[in-house]
Amino acid sequence: MLPHRKLPIIFVTNDDGIHAPGLKKLTAIMREYGHVVVVAPDKPQSGTGHSITMNTPLRLDKIASEEGYDAYSCNGTPVDCVKLGFKIVLKGHPDILVSGINHGSNASVNIIYSGTMAAVLEGSMSNVPSIGFSFNNFSHDSDLAVCDITIRNIVKDVLENGIPEGVCLNVNIPDVQESKLKGIKVCRQAGGTWQEDFDERIDPGGRKYFWLKGLFVKIGHGPDTDVWALENNYVSVVPVHFDLTAEKVIPVLKKRLGNVE
Amino acid sequence: MLPHRKLPIIFVTNDDGIHAPGLKKLTAIMREYGHVVVVAPDKPQSGTGHSITMNTPLRLDKIASEEGYDAYSCNGTPVDCVKLGFKIVLKGHPDILVSGINHGSNASVNIIYSGTMAAVLEGSMSNVPSIGFSFNNFSHDSDLAVCDITIRNIVKDVLENGIPEGVCLNVNIPDVQESKLKGIKVCRQAGGTWQEDFDERIDPGGRKYFWLKGLFVKIGHGPDTDVWALENNYVSVVPVHFDLTAEKVIPVLKKRLGNVE
Repeated sequence: MLPHRKLPIIFVTNDDGIHAPGLKKLTAIMREYGHVVVVAPDKPQSGTGHSITMNTPLRLDKIASEEGYDAYSCNGTPVDCVKLGFKIVLKGHPDILVSGINHGSNASVNIIYSGTMAAVLEGSMSNVPSIGFSFNNFSHDSDLAVCDITIRNIVKDVLENGIPEGVCLNVNIPDVQESKLKGIKVCRQAGGTWQEDFDERIDPGGRKYFWLKGLFVKIGHGPDTDVWALENNYVSVVPVHFDLTAEKVIPVLKKRLGNVE
Repeated sequence: MLPHRKLPIIFVTNDDGIHAPGLKKLTAIMREYGHVVVVAPDKPQSGTGHSITMNTPLRLDKIASEEGYDAYSCNGTPVDCVKLGFKIVLKGHPDILVSGINHGSNASVNIIYSGTMAAVLEGSMSNVPSIGFSFNNFSHDSDLAVCDITIRNIVKDVLENGIPEGVCLNVNIPDVQESKLKGIKVCRQAGGTWQEDFDERIDPGGRKYFWLKGLFVKIGHGPDTDVWALENNYVSVVPVHFDLTAEKVIPVLKKRLGNVE
């Protein structure tokens, strides 16, 4: 199934689904660098976070196979796609995992809700160098051309130098013309929050229902953050890990809650 | 609806669903400390991570109301429950959020997949002091009595002293008799990974389907970690935040990818 093992095996997924323009763009670019295997959700899975499917069976359908390229759609989440892709399709690990191009920013706390970035974290948990690419425009009709140069530069670097173990990259690309792009800025995740909000409606039977909506509120967004970088026409690159320990608070809590060393 | 605003308002949720024994236990304990408002999923939502529901309408059904206690079931994820609970039920923020008691450990990387802990992170993103309680036994029939003393001690401390902003607590309780419980150990998230694995079956129509299963593999589990604490009969308390930045890698990447200061 994967005859070109001499070429890098490149795993591609996303959370906007198998038909999203961002996935097609990313796939086209990645085919320049190796044998591409796409396993992506059969429908939009934005906001599914690190969800996995345990209560319903998963399906995997081959939808394309040609020289240097295989594609599968899956009825699960982005993390399911990574797990099924590695275990069932590749029967092993790829040389690199890329996820996206996400339609919409995954800067700041958006990473917590993002299926695109969950797939990336899942890849890095298997020690696969993994990168998420997101474009700061939610429209599926937006022009993604400005992403090309960034994706090529970062993928070439990672194929050559790898990423330190347990770390992956959250790359966000501003929606500007290429001539206005100021370059890459390595930075940290900005503070921020989504204020909860709902659209309250009544169904034909008279029962209330709610649509989730929300408003992103910036909190910390100094010049060392991804939100600042995007707002100032830089590509933001945040190295990300899956250790959520708030180290600084450990001594405080030890005093309060008691602790046996 | 919430007449006892002089009492602390205590928000309770989980990911095992509104009927789980762990939720009932936690609710009963919390009623000693204030007015309890439960908003919990109407069905099990384990492994849903930080998923939010954007493509289907959400429902909220009142299922109980008595002195000092209101309960609602919701067709969404644990994070949906927090958002709906704050915005629609409380029309504001509670004094404390507790989630659980989860049936099964959320130590190490399990936090990434956990709906119980996602609800806790969501609470802390609104600056509500938030605590997740998990019991190291997956069975809904297990005896949760050993959890009582830990929950009381930690809740009393947090109601009195709060939690530093942007931080929440991941508390895991070992499945031992109270006489063998060695106390609370404040620690860090252990390394670990779930090896992807699937049970492959054929449906009556001849099509393949897959059930996700998996094997947890410990990686880093020294005496400063939650996995070690649990294995040695301590309650583990890990302070957790939602900043995933891998700080140590920033200088390495700056050299490689270029950076404008």
